[in-house]
Amino acid sequence: MALYVLSRRLSTRSTSTTLLTLRFTSNYSSSSSFREERDTFGPIQVPSDKLWGAQTQRSLQNFDIGGPRERMPEPIVRAFGILKKCAAKVNMEYGLDPAIGKAIMQAAQEVAEGKLNDHFPLVVIANRASEILGHKRGEKFVHPNDHVNRSQSSNDTFPTVMHIAAGMEINSRLIPSLKTLHSTLNSKSIEFKDIVKIGRTHTQDATPLTLGQEFSGYTTQVKYSIDRVISTLPHMYQLAQGGTAVGTGLNTKKGFDVKIASAVAEETHLPFVTAENKFEALAAHDAFVETSGALNTIAASLMKVANDIRLLGSGPRCGLGELILPENEPGSSIMPGKVNPTQCEALTMVCAQVMGNNVAITVGGSNGHFELNVFKPVIASCLLQSVRLLGDSAASFEKNCVRGIQANRDRISKLLHESLMLVTSLNPKIGYDKAAAVAKTAHKEGTTLKEAALKLGVLSSEDFDSLVVPEKMIGPTD
Amino acid sequence: MALYVLSRRLSTRSTSTTLLTLRFTSNYSSSSSFREERDTFGPIQVPSDKLWGAQTQRSLQNFDIGGPRERMPEPIVRAFGILKKCAAKVNMEYGLDPAIGKAIMQAAQEVAEGKLNDHFPLVVIANRASEILGHKRGEKFVHPNDHVNRSQSSNDTFPTVMHIAAGMEINSRLIPSLKTLHSTLNSKSIEFKDIVKIGRTHTQDATPLTLGQEFSGYTTQVKYSIDRVISTLPHMYQLAQGGTAVGTGLNTKKGFDVKIASAVAEETHLPFVTAENKFEALAAHDAFVETSGALNTIAASLMKVANDIRLLGSGPRCGLGELILPENEPGSSIMPGKVNPTQCEALTMVCAQVMGNNVAITVGGSNGHFELNVFKPVIASCLLQSVRLLGDSAASFEKNCVRGIQANRDRISKLLHESLMLVTSLNPKIGYDKAAAVAKTAHKEGTTLKEAALKLGVLSSEDFDSLVVPEKMIGPTD
Amino acid sequence: MALYVLSRRLSTRSTSTTLLTLRFTSNYSSSSSFREERDTFGPIQVPSDKLWGAQTQRSLQNFDIGGPRERMPEPIVRAFGILKKCAAKVNMEYGLDPAIGKAIMQAAQEVAEGKLNDHFPLVVIANRASEILGHKRGEKFVHPNDHVNRSQSSNDTFPTVMHIAAGMEINSRLIPSLKTLHSTLNSKSIEFKDIVKIGRTHTQDATPLTLGQEFSGYTTQVKYSIDRVISTLPHMYQLAQGGTAVGTGLNTKKGFDVKIASAVAEETHLPFVTAENKFEALAAHDAFVETSGALNTIAASLMKVANDIRLLGSGPRCGLGELILPENEPGSSIMPGKVNPTQCEALTMVCAQVMGNNVAITVGGSNGHFELNVFKPVIASCLLQSVRLLGDSAASFEKNCVRGIQANRDRISKLLHESLMLVTSLNPKIGYDKAAAVAKTAHKEGTTLKEAALKLGVLSSEDFDSLVVPEKMIGPTD
Amino acid sequence: MALYVLSRRLSTRSTSTTLLTLRFTSNYSSSSSFREERDTFGPIQVPSDKLWGAQTQRSLQNFDIGGPRERMPEPIVRAFGILKKCAAKVNMEYGLDPAIGKAIMQAAQEVAEGKLNDHFPLVVIANRASEILGHKRGEKFVHPNDHVNRSQSSNDTFPTVMHIAAGMEINSRLIPSLKTLHSTLNSKSIEFKDIVKIGRTHTQDATPLTLGQEFSGYTTQVKYSIDRVISTLPHMYQLAQGGTAVGTGLNTKKGFDVKIASAVAEETHLPFVTAENKFEALAAHDAFVETSGALNTIAASLMKVANDIRLLGSGPRCGLGELILPENEPGSSIMPGKVNPTQCEALTMVCAQVMGNNVAITVGGSNGHFELNVFKPVIASCLLQSVRLLGDSAASFEKNCVRGIQANRDRISKLLHESLMLVTSLNPKIGYDKAAAVAKTAHKEGTTLKEAALKLGVLSSEDFDSLVVPEKMIGPTD
Repeated sequence: MALYVLSRRLSTRSTSTTLLTLRFTSNYSSSSSFREERDTFGPIQVPSDKLWGAQTQRSLQNFDIGGPRERMPEPIVRAFGILKKCAAKVNMEYGLDPAIGKAIMQAAQEVAEGKLNDHFPLVVIANRASEILGHKRGEKFVHPNDHVNRSQSSNDTFPTVMHIAAGMEINSRLIPSLKTLHSTLNSKSIEFKDIVKIGRTHTQDATPLTLGQEFSGYTTQVKYSIDRVISTLPHMYQLAQGGTAVGTGLNTKKGFDVKIASAVAEETHLPFVTAENKFEALAAHDAFVETSGALNTIAASLMKVANDIRLLGSGPRCGLGELILPENEPGSSIMPGKVNPTQCEALTMVCAQVMGNNVAITVGGSNGHFELNVFKPVIASCLLQSVRLLGDSAASFEKNCVRGIQANRDRISKLLHESLMLVTSLNPKIGYDKAAAVAKTAHKEGTTLKEAALKLGVLSSEDFDSLVVPEKMIGPTD
Repeated sequence: MALYVLSRRLSTRSTSTTLLTLRFTSNYSSSSSFREERDTFGPIQVPSDKLWGAQTQRSLQNFDIGGPRERMPEPIVRAFGILKKCAAKVNMEYGLDPAIGKAIMQAAQEVAEGKLNDHFPLVVIANRASEILGHKRGEKFVHPNDHVNRSQSSNDTFPTVMHIAAGMEINSRLIPSLKTLHSTLNSKSIEFKDIVKIGRTHTQDATPLTLGQEFSGYTTQVKYSIDRVISTLPHMYQLAQGGTAVGTGLNTKKGFDVKIASAVAEETHLPFVTAENKFEALAAHDAFVETSGALNTIAASLMKVANDIRLLGSGPRCGLGELILPENEPGSSIMPGKVNPTQCEALTMVCAQVMGNNVAITVGGSNGHFELNVFKPVIASCLLQSVRLLGDSAASFEKNCVRGIQANRDRISKLLHESLMLVTSLNPKIGYDKAAAVAKTAHKEGTTLKEAALKLGVLSSEDFDSLVVPEKMIGPTD
Repeated sequence: MALYVLSRRLSTRSTSTTLLTLRFTSNYSSSSSFREERDTFGPIQVPSDKLWGAQTQRSLQNFDIGGPRERMPEPIVRAFGILKKCAAKVNMEYGLDPAIGKAIMQAAQEVAEGKLNDHFPLVVIANRASEILGHKRGEKFVHPNDHVNRSQSSNDTFPTVMHIAAGMEINSRLIPSLKTLHSTLNSKSIEFKDIVKIGRTHTQDATPLTLGQEFSGYTTQVKYSIDRVISTLPHMYQLAQGGTAVGTGLNTKKGFDVKIASAVAEETHLPFVTAENKFEALAAHDAFVETSGALNTIAASLMKVANDIRLLGSGPRCGLGELILPENEPGSSIMPGKVNPTQCEALTMVCAQVMGNNVAITVGGSNGHFELNVFKPVIASCLLQSVRLLGDSAASFEKNCVRGIQANRDRISKLLHESLMLVTSLNPKIGYDKAAAVAKTAHKEGTTLKEAALKLGVLSSEDFDSLVVPEKMIGPTD
Repeated sequence: MALYVLSRRLSTRSTSTTLLTLRFTSNYSSSSSFREERDTFGPIQVPSDKLWGAQTQRSLQNFDIGGPRERMPEPIVRAFGILKKCAAKVNMEYGLDPAIGKAIMQAAQEVAEGKLNDHFPLVVIANRASEILGHKRGEKFVHPNDHVNRSQSSNDTFPTVMHIAAGMEINSRLIPSLKTLHSTLNSKSIEFKDIVKIGRTHTQDATPLTLGQEFSGYTTQVKYSIDRVISTLPHMYQLAQGGTAVGTGLNTKKGFDVKIASAVAEETHLPFVTAENKFEALAAHDAFVETSGALNTIAASLMKVANDIRLLGSGPRCGLGELILPENEPGSSIMPGKVNPTQCEALTMVCAQVMGNNVAITVGGSNGHFELNVFKPVIASCLLQSVRLLGDSAASFEKNCVRGIQANRDRISKLLHESLMLVTSLNPKIGYDKAAAVAKTAHKEGTTLKEAALKLGVLSSEDFDSLVVPEKMIGPTD
């Protein structure tokens, strides 16, 4: 499949022009008419409704892996459009015919907007730019290598579009969703700030805290999640473009690397810069492993939050029942109150996938050889999937779950006051021995502390209520 | 997305009928006209060209995660068709109206054949069966719960189709590809049985072996790969069906579980049986973790094989160059001999993905709660992806790489005879000290052992050739 | 550290004799007097109380990694003793002087019994055997290469001892613990067979099952765990011995491989055999990746079981509280009933470690080059740690937790009867609409179904009790 | 084992005093005499040479997991000493008797210096402080709870020492080693700046670069490694201390948290601060998952570097042979030049372990429940192991490998000039067709380009040499 090809070809013209073979299998088999294309292997039939050329067609046939689901991620295709637009712009400064350059920019813009998702961008851009200039598809008036790919190699363009795609997706999809989730959790933390509830450590009853405090922990986890992914972006913003085949920049002009990074930054409104070391930028994908590590940490955080929420919302009668989760799908009309925590389930599944992707990315990232890491497609695909899944599921979780969570105040209060954890508040008044006796009686007889205290006659109802005040147990003393 | 929902609904009729909400987003947004469907939440608009109902439509809106790429794997949909066909067959034995039963079987067969992939199978089957019987879509003449889902719960049907899908894919896609790969590697091992070459340990020159022996190691790895995945199948062949909601089998009839497993076995020609413990079958997915462990082992094996082959084929001038890999895509016409090992690259990328999926499956598999593991969709999706990718890429690797590998006999011979590893063969004749002197001279002057020996005058050319015979160094002595 | 060295040396005498450099750092620095040893690098000071030689001493200095905690696992050292004993035995058949052979066997037996754990086994065995024969340490009367290591290479001995150690530990430590755990869980399943309790799916109340049924799921998971690890043993029982440096068996005699595997089998009472392909046995460690996959599956299983048990035992007042876990450490005298599930915590921590080790083993297993995988030490160490941790913690969990678990019958019964899940039992008698009204009333008013039913006057107390019988809901109908 | 216990006990005096039970099994079994200690469970025998108490002894017996190798990491023990010293200092400000406070500080300092590593620090500090004040061991003149553990809970002390230990180890062990490695790689990059060599992409010959450029890529990877781990430290510097049992700070005084973080910062010379949210700090260990993600990235980087170096150093005759690695252990006297890349092997094994540990930490980090994550011991142990292994092996790799790497200039030059990659330099002079003919002839006949060019008579030797200048191919053009 597309995803599992990173092929590099020395062109017939120059060692600098290389082709990346992407494959877009989504609907290629639906074609019924074909045109003949040629390469150095000879003629090959290409579906006539496709803009791609011989080499793409060959890879479709040589890499029949994974079926239509395994195709190059759309953000990669769009990033190719952005890069090729910027390359044409910069190449005009270095002498590319402006008519051709502008046609390439227009065709590339169409790719950037997703209009040519079903086609392969590179040859496509050439063919589309030819059409824009009134020439025929396949005529190569605008040449894929000489014009569109000028001063570029798949070895530097592919890592460049990986970084552009990841940078854009993280900024447009992941961070906004996390920010909204953070904001809503924070609102809940404030909304619940006066609800005192039992704490739980080792899954056992512990001293009390407020539900707002509990949610403030989740809020902080998401706040740090945002920090974490942002702190990895500086390396992600470094672009390999200008390194060409092995990092030396052979066949580019001095300054090309800086200019193109600048053009990409302008186009995307993100602070892309040229990589300080192009050898590292081609031979390793540590920036992806690093960002994946942050995503993995976010997954661990969200797994904790979603797990807590589903357990605190467990019930309706036989669980902890402290939270009431919104009912998004019809439950049972005969069995009210049973609300499956489906948003928690989707989110934790996503977290499992992100943790797995992190291992795939790590294995791919560690296995480069010499001047090129060739695991680029799987690394890019896994990272972009992780970004999208985390972004989408954080948004879904916020909108369809967190926003609508209600505290089950009666249940929370009941559990808190049934707890034996409050017994220590009696110590100062009645002493340790009597306090212990109260707790033991309550535990043995299954009553509340108050009932036990009154039964044992160690203090009055009023005294109990004035001594046992969970609200005084939720912070340090002055 | 579809993939991240496993919703269970207590129906309005009975606690036994539950619905699994799958989502098939592939082209749902292309609809322009809608019909109104209803559930207990009220009315909802459903695209008029879709056979699914209200609940599926809601999940599409509540789980907007991952986009069209993240949809339920096709083998799961097909397995649902098989299961529902079998269930109708067995339910007729327990009193289901034969007219309805047969219509369900026919509709389910269409699902099993992939004809209704764009639709949600359960309600779909009901609607399609109604159509088959001359009734209108949505009229519920054939009812999804009362008829199609009779004696079933999503809690037992979903794990059942997971097992059916995995069992079928492993048998139809993975094992045959591995067998072909094994066979071709074995042929190569035989083809290369007389080519003596330098061995390498610690990436350093070592004593010789034949290229056939080297390939026999790869052959054995693939042979054991097949054994490994087969040895996990007994647990995969256990079906949860009959456990209904929590494993007890409430609302089924005694014997239903055995009969349906038997029907599935007959339908698939695979030895499916009813799970000996339905509680384990719903609450855990250890069988998937186990099989994924085997796939992970296969990935480690194939990573080694593909890595060796690309390194042995490295060159054309500055690598090891012992193997000539087939040229599938045009290389450089000006630079003959440069053939990128793209099949090795695709295969090793797949291996990285499989290793990552194994972690995702493990995390999902370890996180079940009480009577149900709810990570089913991500577990199933990852495993089926791993099976497909390994199967497809093993086939591609076999066809487009291994089959066409040629030994570069000249290069192999040159390296072998340039090696200093053969010096020990001189010991018996000229003694250790002189042999060491020969090696040191060769190393220092960059010559062959023979050249050094002749230069030092310690033996004749004929003597050297009769003593230094790598062919005698490739096995134990009698 | 010891753990991170696998060095192979071509000896000065023959290409066949090689040395594995293990490092045992436990107390090497405590020595205050030294003796001089020599190798081809020249003289080096060795602590006089150590039996090892120059090469081990060098590796101590060159690999100062990880400190005393990172030393070769004891089962590896013991396995070396077993192997060297067997090798001496077989070598006597092939002409080794019986006096020397018997002394080696005696010295090797001491290693196998752990008596020389602080020393390096190979040279040690030679030195100790010399002592046994009345010669001085260092005199090399019994030679490490010529006698002890005869017909062997570190390239085949190290994988051989890896397999021996793993096979022995799995059989002596892991399987017995799992069997005991299985037996105790099974006993609990029987003990609890009549306790009907609420089921939970999606962490929400579901239809009932017995506590015995719930434990039968755990029991089955452990039963399959045993099957899983056993099913990987056939590959583990294959020994590389006889492959020497690259798998060819150069410098061994025909039949040596079979004889030594047979001797090891006899010595260990385990069905070790010679590997059918020695090239695979040296160049890959797929058998370890495979077994680790089984251990990873066991970890996923035990994570589920331990998690359920700590959640079912949560409380004492504010959790689910269905199980009473044994109190092994003093809890709070003032706060009775608070028992931290420390055994569950230890076990789940072990599971996390095992899952991590599986990735380490997979990465190591996939990164072999050509004729030798050099990640042997980390692969062996991780697998043996996983085996030991799982074995020990399963035993601890069984003894200190499962064995003493009691059902909290009152709590279980209370939850079950408070549940609204039983409402469907009323349908046949009072119809769906009235039944739904009962449930809604109970949910709204926080009462039991029975209270609601009586309040609404839809049936009598006797009728309710005769209709709502959870005991009838725990299996299929006849 | 020690490592798998995190037990929390409500003391008989107050809910705030809790004990962490660590286990130090290193030599506990060697005792032959015992004293009786008591807790609420009754009497228990403790080895008389140990300073620990009843509870530690019980945990030794209840958690017999993993044997002596699995004990609490030494940095954790030392960090406990630092924390307890600081706590005594701050507690004196809040009224702790100065005589007792100072004795605690002295005893804690001994723990911080590793003098009491064989003992359990908490009770130990009390007993040792009592001794310092002239009282007897066990007399509890200085009380573990009332004095040493004042205002603290194991729930906040353990995460605090985890952070202290990790912060210190990263700064003292990992970063300095990486900096030295970076510096040495950078020196090599400069040393090799004029050595032009063949580039390799897809493991195939590519356009040239300098060996210095190649090493500059490694240098940059290590430079970024340092950045990466440093960028995670801000969260690591946040201390949980002051959160007590559930994060509320119950039983501390206002300001205690800030003061103790400040004292730790002063003691360690590291910028520790109090955690902005104590609930997050107890319930999650995202900071460890985050830092482990950086370590995992470093492992991926170092795996690439070490792999390249061992492959570039492969040989001596039949590998790439471009690098000469230092010979640290005796090779073969008869087979000169064979140097096993043992430092690369140790480093890549460490990388595999770190990747595995990252998964273990992620699984542990994602599995917290409610107010406490109880996977602390395994998370801390794995992270500290990763830090130590990476630090030690980076240092070993620098010292014993990188520092001594020499370029094999002859071999590099030979490969470069044998390469066909330089043919494109002929295009401008003789045209594409003739250039292609030269390359084809060279490939077919196994000669150099120059030999082929001269043979075909397309240009003179002088022309060839003036046209084919690899030195002009290593950068962009002006």
